[in-house]
Amino acid sequence: MKVLITGGGGFLGYRLAQTLSRKGSLTNAAGLQEAISRIVLFDMAFPAEAGARFQCAQGDLTDRPGVEAALGGDTDAVFHLASVVSGGAEADFDLGMRVNLDGTRGLLDLCRKQARPPRLVFTSSVAVFGGELPEVIDDGTTPNPQGSYGAQKVCCEYLVGDYSRKGFIDGRTVRLPTISVRPGKPNLAVSSFASGIIREPLAGVAAICPVGRDAALWLLSPGKAIESLVHAFELPSSAWGTRRVLNLPGVTAAVGDLIDSLRRIAGDRAADLVQIRIDPAIEALILSWPARFATDRALKLGFTADEDAESLIRGYIEDQGIEV
Amino acid sequence: MKVLITGGGGFLGYRLAQTLSRKGSLTNAAGLQEAISRIVLFDMAFPAEAGARFQCAQGDLTDRPGVEAALGGDTDAVFHLASVVSGGAEADFDLGMRVNLDGTRGLLDLCRKQARPPRLVFTSSVAVFGGELPEVIDDGTTPNPQGSYGAQKVCCEYLVGDYSRKGFIDGRTVRLPTISVRPGKPNLAVSSFASGIIREPLAGVAAICPVGRDAALWLLSPGKAIESLVHAFELPSSAWGTRRVLNLPGVTAAVGDLIDSLRRIAGDRAADLVQIRIDPAIEALILSWPARFATDRALKLGFTADEDAESLIRGYIEDQGIEV
Repeated sequence: MKVLITGGGGFLGYRLAQTLSRKGSLTNAAGLQEAISRIVLFDMAFPAEAGARFQCAQGDLTDRPGVEAALGGDTDAVFHLASVVSGGAEADFDLGMRVNLDGTRGLLDLCRKQARPPRLVFTSSVAVFGGELPEVIDDGTTPNPQGSYGAQKVCCEYLVGDYSRKGFIDGRTVRLPTISVRPGKPNLAVSSFASGIIREPLAGVAAICPVGRDAALWLLSPGKAIESLVHAFELPSSAWGTRRVLNLPGVTAAVGDLIDSLRRIAGDRAADLVQIRIDPAIEALILSWPARFATDRALKLGFTADEDAESLIRGYIEDQGIEV
Repeated sequence: MKVLITGGGGFLGYRLAQTLSRKGSLTNAAGLQEAISRIVLFDMAFPAEAGARFQCAQGDLTDRPGVEAALGGDTDAVFHLASVVSGGAEADFDLGMRVNLDGTRGLLDLCRKQARPPRLVFTSSVAVFGGELPEVIDDGTTPNPQGSYGAQKVCCEYLVGDYSRKGFIDGRTVRLPTISVRPGKPNLAVSSFASGIIREPLAGVAAICPVGRDAALWLLSPGKAIESLVHAFELPSSAWGTRRVLNLPGVTAAVGDLIDSLRRIAGDRAADLVQIRIDPAIEALILSWPARFATDRALKLGFTADEDAESLIRGYIEDQGIEV
């Protein structure tokens, strides 16, 4: 089984590659474990050690020949994670459309050209929800994005659905909660602070939080996110039926909860490094994203989330081998 | 006020042009009646008399320079009706994507290039719904199209929403019920028979009905459809808020109801000209479309539908001056 991971040089994508490499096989369309013969990472940049472990194809999603070469006509499994993040897509509308919408469509069209339609997992986001929302989002809540990133994601969800219905791919979309705690540096994602306010203080560095303590988030740890992507892939096509998208389980946490948890785990010195300095534009977008979900369908299909906000922080500390 | 109607040579588009021409003005963004100075029709073909009454621009939606010329950089009102119909988009996937998705996006991008963002009414369809559906569709039901036409329409709904949020256009989408009774010839729309089984018998011609008597439809007369398009245009932007799409009111009628109504109005000779000969592919698609709606939001915003199935038939007879 040949696997392609778009965004494979990014944090989640590379972690997925490592997990798949350790795991060594994936359940295929026949329901059997099939050995992974090759993992190709497609991205604009890669971790230094990536080249020694995986086939790295450099390019961006708008580079059709590059995507075509990475796919190679014989890919069995696609994990499509690459995208311009929320803040970037909002700041540069054309770039977001080109990469997130046209890039995804280009990838789907190349998959369709293959003799054997690949199984494809697409990562969408809770950013598809917005506007007037119910107290709790459930499987019946209609997406109504209030950002271009969310609009592009929801269009791609429908494309993945229709390409699957036509038999061009065997697609499935999971809407990821905000991933926390991400290691590394802040990025352009509007939700970048949701990792920063934990990660930076644990490294003894001050962190600016652009939203108030009451702002609530729907969160998932990187480890659970990777588990969910693999599970989404391994579910039989029949489990998805005519609805090829679902909201992943997660944990609801207010910014204040996260800071308090950090204080309990790592003490005042760490927690006091978080400074709340509200950025109205970011706060408005974050508040337009929902933070409370009932994910019955996903739970029934066997997806799981972290226990609570504290476990997100403890998981990060353990992953990174940080001493507190 | 300069008006562009894409699909303006088609049945609904041309009827809209005639209505606007008679009406002479439209409510503008300031809430004032503004005289219509020019009506431009963009389409691949036009009724013979169209050229004498309107500016006719020939082309299809994929012809960007043609669309650009028709828009002319100074259009205040766009009614975007042009599309490859449901059966056509299902039979030729690439054509549907090119015209319905790329063509609409191209139009939106050209609108965005204008110094003054136009107000735009986009016609979507009940074909966005499908899969496992509730007994009655309401304003909260999530689209889940089971045809490429519906998938393309729903993507465009989200684009119209996001372009509006960004201030590139002032867009609003209405999901049209199946229009019945359309005059003229059958077309490639899967629902073409919903007009044919009335229109043909009234002209003394046999009509094949590809679905059973129990198959129910969600219908709207051409007259009410035009009224709805104008009303959608004239509503203030604030009435749409963050949700730029709604389901139009209509009438639920089973095929058997339509035939029985025809029998009551035009006698056995007409009704007996309808022959049910089931086409499983068409019936499957039609049965995947919902036929019962609660359109509270539209009713509250002042949209109205026909009274019942009989009034659809009587309206057609009156429009066409048919003697029964």
